[in-house]
Parts: sequence; C-alpha cells; structure tokens
Amino acid sequence: MSVAVYDRSPTQAAARQLLADYTHVLDEGPLTDWPTFFTESCLYRITTRQNEERNMPLSIMLCDNHAMLYDRVEAVEKANIFEPHYYRHILSDTRTLRTTADSTWLQTSFICVRTMLDGQMCLFAAGKYVDEVVMHEDRCLFRSKTVVLDSSQVDTLIAKPL
Amino acid sequence: MSVAVYDRSPTQAAARQLLADYTHVLDEGPLTDWPTFFTESCLYRITTRQNEERNMPLSIMLCDNHAMLYDRVEAVEKANIFEPHYYRHILSDTRTLRTTADSTWLQTSFICVRTMLDGQMCLFAAGKYVDEVVMHEDRCLFRSKTVVLDSSQVDTLIAKPL
Amino acid sequence: MSVAVYDRSPTQAAARQLLADYTHVLDEGPLTDWPTFFTESCLYRITTRQNEERNMPLSIMLCDNHAMLYDRVEAVEKANIFEPHYYRHILSDTRTLRTTADSTWLQTSFICVRTMLDGQMCLFAAGKYVDEVVMHEDRCLFRSKTVVLDSSQVDTLIAKPL
Repeated sequence: MSVAVYDRSPTQAAARQLLADYTHVLDEGPLTDWPTFFTESCLYRITTRQNEERNMPLSIMLCDNHAMLYDRVEAVEKANIFEPHYYRHILSDTRTLRTTADSTWLQTSFICVRTMLDGQMCLFAAGKYVDEVVMHEDRCLFRSKTVVLDSSQVDTLIAKPL
Repeated sequence: MSVAVYDRSPTQAAARQLLADYTHVLDEGPLTDWPTFFTESCLYRITTRQNEERNMPLSIMLCDNHAMLYDRVEAVEKANIFEPHYYRHILSDTRTLRTTADSTWLQTSFICVRTMLDGQMCLFAAGKYVDEVVMHEDRCLFRSKTVVLDSSQVDTLIAKPL
Repeated sequence: MSVAVYDRSPTQAAARQLLADYTHVLDEGPLTDWPTFFTESCLYRITTRQNEERNMPLSIMLCDNHAMLYDRVEAVEKANIFEPHYYRHILSDTRTLRTTADSTWLQTSFICVRTMLDGQMCLFAAGKYVDEVVMHEDRCLFRSKTVVLDSSQVDTLIAKPL
C-alpha cells in the first residue's frame, strides 16, 4: 500500500470551506458524497464529551478507513431501518488548534437540528468537530474527524453520520 | 415600467453582509426596513423542503413585487392578530451556487429561535435561504429570496417574515 | 489608579477572534481564564431584551471591575451550588455598530445550548452580545460586554457566565 504524501498544511479558510461543503452534503445529500471528504487512509469517530474528558477511547461510531465510510453509507441507504429525517447543521467559529508539517488541526462548535418527515423538529445534537485536514491535489480533505457530542444520551441508533 | 439594470454579480462577502443586516432587521426591527433589502421587482417566498424536493410550486407565503412586501409589513404592524414575539436568527455558512452576468445565487442554512413576551422560547424554524442577489447603486439587494423550511408543520399563521 | 490608554479601535476580525476564544473558554474551560478577556477596568452585564427596550438599568448579573469577575469565577468553582452542566455557544454574524478613537462597538447574535451531565440537552439562552472592544498590548479585550437575553424567564440561578 502506498502512503499518500501531503506537502502543506491547509489554511483555516480552506478548512472552513470543507466544513461548509461537508455539512451541506449531510443536510441535503447525496450521502454517497460523504466519504469523498476524507483521505483514503482516515479516521472518523463519534464520541461523547464525557468519554473525551476521561480519555476513554470509547466511540459511538468508528470508521478507520475509506471502505468503512462507504459501508456506512450503504447501510444507511439500503437498510432503511430508521425513520426518514432531515438534518440541519449550524456551525459556529472554527479555531485552529495547531499546524503540523502537512496538516492543520481545527475545532468547530456545531449544533444539528433534526426534522422528521411528519414535521416534528428537535435539537438533535450539540458538540464540536475536532478535525485534522490535509491538502490532496488542491482539495482540502479530512484525515481525521472526531465528532464530540456534549450529550451522552444520544440516540443509539444514529444512522446518518454527523 | 423601466427595468433596472444590474451590471455585476455581487461577491459572497457582500451577500453575507446583506444577510447579516437582513436578519438583524427581522430580529430587532424596524420591520418597515424589511422591504428595503429587495429590488423593486422581486420575489419573496416561504416554502417547505418537501415541496421543493417534489418541485411543487406551493408557497406558504409569496410576495412577487415590492408593494406586496410593504402590504405584508402593514398587515403585521397594524393587524396585530398574533401574540407578540421576538425572533433570533442564527446563520451558518453561505455557499455560492452560481454566478450570472449580473447576479449571484447563494444558499445559507439558518435556524430561528422564537421568544414570546412571557419568556417562553422555542426552536421555531430551521432551513435554508436560497437567494439571488444583485448590486444596485453600490448596495447589495435580494432579487429573489426563497425560504425553504425543513419542517412542513409550520405555524400556519406565520405573521412576521423569516 | 492609572488609567489604561488604548490607541486604536480593533478591527471586526480581531473582535470576532476574541468572541470565538471567549465562547470557547465558556464552553470548554478553564473558567479561570474568563476574566482575562476583559480590561482591568471593565463592565460585564447580563440583562433582558425587555429591560433594554424600556431603558431599564436592571441587570441579572453585573460585574463592574476585574476583581468581581474573579469573585464570580471563584463562586462558581468553589460553591458548586448548581448541577454540573456544559454550555455550547453558537455565534451568528458580528455587526460593527460604531468606532470610537480607541474602541469598537459590535453586536453578535448567539444561542447557548446547555447539556446536563445526565445527557439532557436544551436551548438555554438566545440573545445578543453588545461589546465594546479595545486593543491592549496587541491583544483584543472587552472593555464592556452586555449580554441581552431574548427571554425574561431565565434561570435565576445562572451560575456560569454567558
């Protein structure tokens, strides 16, 4: 397996555009585009704030390679085990945590409103994204994305990624 | 009737400033300023996501010229048929959809929190703005604004515009 | 007592970075950093929209010097009279209200989601920040910060600052 080389750390503006495009796809689809925001070798994780603060590696959802992201999409699209719903992500400011030789780590607070097809609407999730982004052929991508939820009482059947 | 000519498509930054000013007026008034954010010949529409996805032209609210916007304001200010309340709009990122010779189309996710005078607060609306903006004498204005609500169960008596 | 001299009004971008850092500390701690966002001689106030509109000077919380901010932090950290919870602030756009010789006045809409340790999550507050910011040794700081809450029905035991 060849290892991708990324030769510069993205700017915060590039990372922010990635986040805007990413949440747009989660909110409006197509969900099959979701994996395209990640590098081939990647990490996607949903965890809770309490786990993070206790340094517990427990995850609610974990995908540690690209194929698993596609599996997830297929499960969501095919299985249809959950009631259809819409997401609406609202992002607050992005803060750059640190820059490495080839990547940038950033943190962004967000909330997600969920609307069921019958019209019922609720504040579904609040938390932060902790992201490592890289530049790959002039496109900004997530090498690692951790969704840290403020609430530990999350719907255990989170079907669509956040 | 003379037709206004707009000779350049606004930048995303100019459109964003317009959105910030627009939501400020909805949240803090005066509501009589609301029509001044639109071109003389304009379209303002509130619809639902389900209608949009089915390409149904159904609107919850529709104003297709400037006079109708003022009629709407007058109805809200004079009639007082609804319980007084405050709005608070929170905008997420704006994405440019396309640029024409004289206008820019953009999309912006938003939520709106409503607070009644007795202090009761709720997540009132979530959705997106789909806007066509133009420059008119160095001011950025909406030529067309479609408010697409995620929920189809909206208060049928939406009195104040969103 | 010497009076600090601030020789330029901050840009909106500098003020926005201050707001991002400020809400980050409220959301993720340490709360002891909270007073460091204010000038030595400062004003921090929480009030309601109805009070503001009636020009009533009533405040829910008031600190008119730096020492009071530290007292507040100590009260929160030591007393532990309230149930532990997390905040998550989401900011909408910042609008510059006016610029003086040495400061900038700005307004920013926000919401705050509160999550209790048992996982219960609610829309806790909506409103706006009205801030006067100055530059002090290349750091942007609040000289005055007024939190105007849309709802007058706020938890009277607001322990953590907003």
